[in-house]
Amino acid sequence: MANALDCAAAAGWERACLIALFTDFGLDGPYTGQVKAVLADMAPGVPVVDLFADAPAGDPKASAYLLATYAAWFPKRTVFLCVVDPGVGGPRPALFLEADGRWFVGPGNGLFELVQRRARETRCFEIDWRPERLSASFHGRDLFAPFAAMLARGDTPPGRSCEDPSRRADWPDELSEIAYIDHYGNAMTGLRAAALPADARLSVAGRVLERATTFSDRPRGAAFWYENSNGLAEIAVNQGRADRDLGLSIGAPVEIAA
Amino acid sequence: MANALDCAAAAGWERACLIALFTDFGLDGPYTGQVKAVLADMAPGVPVVDLFADAPAGDPKASAYLLATYAAWFPKRTVFLCVVDPGVGGPRPALFLEADGRWFVGPGNGLFELVQRRARETRCFEIDWRPERLSASFHGRDLFAPFAAMLARGDTPPGRSCEDPSRRADWPDELSEIAYIDHYGNAMTGLRAAALPADARLSVAGRVLERATTFSDRPRGAAFWYENSNGLAEIAVNQGRADRDLGLSIGAPVEIAA
Amino acid sequence: MANALDCAAAAGWERACLIALFTDFGLDGPYTGQVKAVLADMAPGVPVVDLFADAPAGDPKASAYLLATYAAWFPKRTVFLCVVDPGVGGPRPALFLEADGRWFVGPGNGLFELVQRRARETRCFEIDWRPERLSASFHGRDLFAPFAAMLARGDTPPGRSCEDPSRRADWPDELSEIAYIDHYGNAMTGLRAAALPADARLSVAGRVLERATTFSDRPRGAAFWYENSNGLAEIAVNQGRADRDLGLSIGAPVEIAA
Repeated sequence: MANALDCAAAAGWERACLIALFTDFGLDGPYTGQVKAVLADMAPGVPVVDLFADAPAGDPKASAYLLATYAAWFPKRTVFLCVVDPGVGGPRPALFLEADGRWFVGPGNGLFELVQRRARETRCFEIDWRPERLSASFHGRDLFAPFAAMLARGDTPPGRSCEDPSRRADWPDELSEIAYIDHYGNAMTGLRAAALPADARLSVAGRVLERATTFSDRPRGAAFWYENSNGLAEIAVNQGRADRDLGLSIGAPVEIAA
Repeated sequence: MANALDCAAAAGWERACLIALFTDFGLDGPYTGQVKAVLADMAPGVPVVDLFADAPAGDPKASAYLLATYAAWFPKRTVFLCVVDPGVGGPRPALFLEADGRWFVGPGNGLFELVQRRARETRCFEIDWRPERLSASFHGRDLFAPFAAMLARGDTPPGRSCEDPSRRADWPDELSEIAYIDHYGNAMTGLRAAALPADARLSVAGRVLERATTFSDRPRGAAFWYENSNGLAEIAVNQGRADRDLGLSIGAPVEIAA
Repeated sequence: MANALDCAAAAGWERACLIALFTDFGLDGPYTGQVKAVLADMAPGVPVVDLFADAPAGDPKASAYLLATYAAWFPKRTVFLCVVDPGVGGPRPALFLEADGRWFVGPGNGLFELVQRRARETRCFEIDWRPERLSASFHGRDLFAPFAAMLARGDTPPGRSCEDPSRRADWPDELSEIAYIDHYGNAMTGLRAAALPADARLSVAGRVLERATTFSDRPRGAAFWYENSNGLAEIAVNQGRADRDLGLSIGAPVEIAA
């Protein structure tokens, strides 16, 4: 068991270049704003960006595949404040994790499973720090945001080294489901394109879809899959909405057709 | 009647720590962005957060209960730029208000009623400053944002001390209605949980709901009410959407059942 | 043909006061956040605001009228990062444009047509710089954002002077269509109110609408048009939603009735 000094020393930590929010809070209402108020107050000058504010609500499993994929695009010294937390107020632990030079703060419910599995080097810590006032339902604001701010400003993070008690060895390396519907109605799967045969076809909602390189090489209204800009297999309809046109929603199964 | 110096001196005002936006503008379209452009230009370096961008549209009454509740969470020296303003372009006054060390800028239409009623100490001023160019329909950008920026950067705010002419003594202390539907479909009432008996049941849309402490102590699909992280009584369905599952929308009456 | 130095010298360029995002990316998902991460990294300290995150999706024509109208409100030395780019990955050029002291970065697909047509002075450059890693589908993040950041921080922008190859002389000066539906359900046309007779009536979806000065001078539920705060003719229903009440959507034709 390490003490707090260990984790800071281990990481050679100074100050974050960026805080990225990965939540199911939405942006319009009061949740993200309160989190940002905490960050502005406690880690002034560190830029904050919204990576996902609409991660699959209450669904740490689908979220875990998105997080691992998108976090890999960000530079080292990014702090990810991650809150998809249906068990808030219950017994799930609060964790922070160093993975290949990036930090992750959030609930221990599987959300970090794929980040850990895909990283070369990880260290996991349990957050035993508690704020003076901790609500039962908004640990994002009361616990994780202050903790992320401390990390971001370069403080020695108070934590206790642990094996992540929420590892989910039963989850697959690639998720054969729709994991996210974007603003255009495109449907991201939890499958990395690089893990698929080059000529793979994907079967979803009774349709078999070919791979395309870009949108513009397909006729208007055609459905296809392609490798999106972060490496996931994504289903789209050229100048249409795949979610509506094909009847897709989060959790819909996707099969790899021969 | 005080002059401009009075209000600055009275408040011992220096510089805001934060500007919080409370509007019904939405975030996607051009309104919030233009307001933030004004703030970035006129109060550079003061952090701006979106508290609510989807306050009940055109509904200062429901908004007033949300504003009073959520503003109380923020530190002193926060400037709240508040625009829920169906009467824009009409005769309603433009106000700014000091309440327990926080500043509020916005239309005089009842929006600040509950803030004033719940504060220990308030001072109200009418904004008689006018910008060079004032549109008929976007005082948020043209009048309130520059004024909030002046306050935020520590300028002596030009205003005329007044009794708020838009006080609404007829509004109740607690609003027995749904005041907001959040991103998860949870329905916030305008009732503070602390004002209810510990074992109160809430009756809404033909259902009588028990109180729960957290989401996780209820079975999947169960409807209940609980004290949310800012103290309001909120109606939720564990792993469901209360708005859809119970048929709730803003304005729906809520009764306290024995 | 000018070289890179020409465009910087011509503009007397120093550093942007602001970066404004004009996209169809949405705010919730991963696209805007990744763009902002690039800007925070490459142009630290330059404020970034979301002007439109829901420009008409994949519709450079309707977007062009919104962009020209809204950009005119912003100060000189604003950099507009503009991505409505259905042809991403295809042969359309990448452009940057100086127009009356403002800079525009984005795809050459007509998106800048109205900006150019309405400006007193413009210079157009083709972006021949390419990043180390360019995805096929997200030039907003990989090409346009780094380029906008370089411009914003005052670097000499690498570009090749050109006649914009994507000019659309066939597009009208005023767009007689619904170009945008806002958060309130108001329907903006692509018509500037100043280009219409003072007593013009607008015919849309089988209704003929009179002009009003403000919302508050019309009875509840009445439909009308008015000059919005950026000069466009906009259709609204007092205390209603024009999109729903009148059945309006983007692209619906609008006629000027005698």
